[in-house]
Amino acid sequence: MDLSATAIATPNIALIKYWGKEDEKLIIPKNSSISITLDESLSTKTSVLFSSSLKEDIFYINGEKQDLSNNEVKERFNIINMLRQEANVNEHVAVVSENNFPTAAGLASSASGISAMVFAASKALSLNKSLFELGIIARQGSGSSCRSLAGGFVKWEKGSRKDGLDSSIRQIAPSSHWPEIIDIIAIASKSKKKIPSRSGMKQTVETSILYKARPEYAEEACISMEKAILSKDFESLALLTMRDSNNMHALMLDTWPPIIYLNQTSLEIIGEIQNLNQSMGKLVAAYTFDAGPNAHIITTKEHEKEIRNILEGIDGVESIISAGIGNGPRLLGEKDSIIEKYIKL
Amino acid sequence: MDLSATAIATPNIALIKYWGKEDEKLIIPKNSSISITLDESLSTKTSVLFSSSLKEDIFYINGEKQDLSNNEVKERFNIINMLRQEANVNEHVAVVSENNFPTAAGLASSASGISAMVFAASKALSLNKSLFELGIIARQGSGSSCRSLAGGFVKWEKGSRKDGLDSSIRQIAPSSHWPEIIDIIAIASKSKKKIPSRSGMKQTVETSILYKARPEYAEEACISMEKAILSKDFESLALLTMRDSNNMHALMLDTWPPIIYLNQTSLEIIGEIQNLNQSMGKLVAAYTFDAGPNAHIITTKEHEKEIRNILEGIDGVESIISAGIGNGPRLLGEKDSIIEKYIKL
Repeated sequence: MDLSATAIATPNIALIKYWGKEDEKLIIPKNSSISITLDESLSTKTSVLFSSSLKEDIFYINGEKQDLSNNEVKERFNIINMLRQEANVNEHVAVVSENNFPTAAGLASSASGISAMVFAASKALSLNKSLFELGIIARQGSGSSCRSLAGGFVKWEKGSRKDGLDSSIRQIAPSSHWPEIIDIIAIASKSKKKIPSRSGMKQTVETSILYKARPEYAEEACISMEKAILSKDFESLALLTMRDSNNMHALMLDTWPPIIYLNQTSLEIIGEIQNLNQSMGKLVAAYTFDAGPNAHIITTKEHEKEIRNILEGIDGVESIISAGIGNGPRLLGEKDSIIEKYIKL
Repeated sequence: MDLSATAIATPNIALIKYWGKEDEKLIIPKNSSISITLDESLSTKTSVLFSSSLKEDIFYINGEKQDLSNNEVKERFNIINMLRQEANVNEHVAVVSENNFPTAAGLASSASGISAMVFAASKALSLNKSLFELGIIARQGSGSSCRSLAGGFVKWEKGSRKDGLDSSIRQIAPSSHWPEIIDIIAIASKSKKKIPSRSGMKQTVETSILYKARPEYAEEACISMEKAILSKDFESLALLTMRDSNNMHALMLDTWPPIIYLNQTSLEIIGEIQNLNQSMGKLVAAYTFDAGPNAHIITTKEHEKEIRNILEGIDGVESIISAGIGNGPRLLGEKDSIIEKYIKL
């Protein structure tokens, strides 16, 4: 009996960041977070096949066979085991994943990868799961990946239950609510990031002197951000976005040993976006940085050309990608499966 | 009647930083701070002359005539007016100051300049002032300058009085207590800093979300630092120093608009010092940054050569200066006056 499915999912860019867990095991965050799910300008396609013709579990990312005894890989792959067990399926599984963008350079490849994997696997196993249930599973692989399970503007609620069952995602508004919003991504380094987010945020919670001041502020920032999104108030969105990015990177610097993801190119981009906003007399663009040096410039379509020009003039910007707001993951047909590209059955 | 004196003073490098005022007018800090007063490898020489042959007040820094109607200059020069008034002197004054290092690039030229000025002026006016009284005056010109009035390891106590009269400096230990300590300074940019400390720290206190977590921590850090100094525990001194530098720069990043003094060279120095400490299996050096990109590497003489070699290999390091621990300001003789270099009487 062969069970298979192929899904496509996209990264999300957090406007209010997730950086710190309340519960390490259940992956309950210290504060709620809000993100934009990007369109398929950046995407991960994942095919999943449970088949008795497989002699072992196999996992490929971008053509590279993953070592399933590696702890980091194991953590992610464990999602598949959870779903397989729930569906009472005993077959081995092949998971094959392809990104159309650089992996693990702070471009949230884990978010699109894991949401595509959860989406495809639960479909292959005919598990009829709600978005809410999928989110709880996805965040076991990578916390912020759960936000990629919905399209548009998405909030991951911290929740208040000890068991984390109300820490769930919710769509604030679909992409059609504010389709003018775009994310212009400036790749400032294609190298793999040095400190993985999971261990980085743990270090911050454990050692940062200033961290205790974040959760309450971030919770309030989420409320303000939701209002800004619903009322399409770009200036409020921009200010909250930049301040939260600064806040998170400040806490990283205050961590011991310090975590420094930003580089000179990132710092220059911050300066140039400040200059642009100042020269316009209002906020027309916001920078935000995840756990890497690449800048995400949140703006509206009318400013795209101008901002691309600015970014092109900055030393160290290796490439620029624009993405709109997307609709979340979707299933593809059987003919779109990429299993046979890598695995001879 | 001519009243004159010449003094030499040196910068100090804070191990636990001053960044934020409790009282803007009295210059009472939000937290106590601790610094090392450097030796005369870096120094400011200042001559002061009150004379009836002067037709106006004149102020030179490094050969450049200062505009006494400029607010920043006025603030500093006001110290002279306070002292002149107290001494009941009506003559005009000439103040001439020379640094042997780049001005206002985060090398605390204001600290050595102001402490030399206060020291020379109070001597010229025969005001018999205690260190404590001099400190209260000096900090009107630049808060951290008061720490340069004593030698060795110096604490500026926050104090608890509303009028700031117990916010004073105190020598923790003289330079002879731990003469092996040196500060290796890597100049990462000779350009004048963009945001003056005075307005920068005000912005931080007013806008940083995380700032509220600093004062209590910094107060405790001062207590731990004093213990580390008294017991010559270099590893504790190094850890406290690096963490406090990171903490202050984190708060600067969390300020709106963000204050970013560190550049790529600074970040690389941080990384290299971390590597060195890791390879040694213990902390043998600590980086610390004031309001600028230049690194101060606090270490002991035995590691000087090694660290200079490391710094020389870092892109963007323009020059390297080593300084030991100094003894605070001192008076020079009449023949050392530099007044006539600039002013024809």
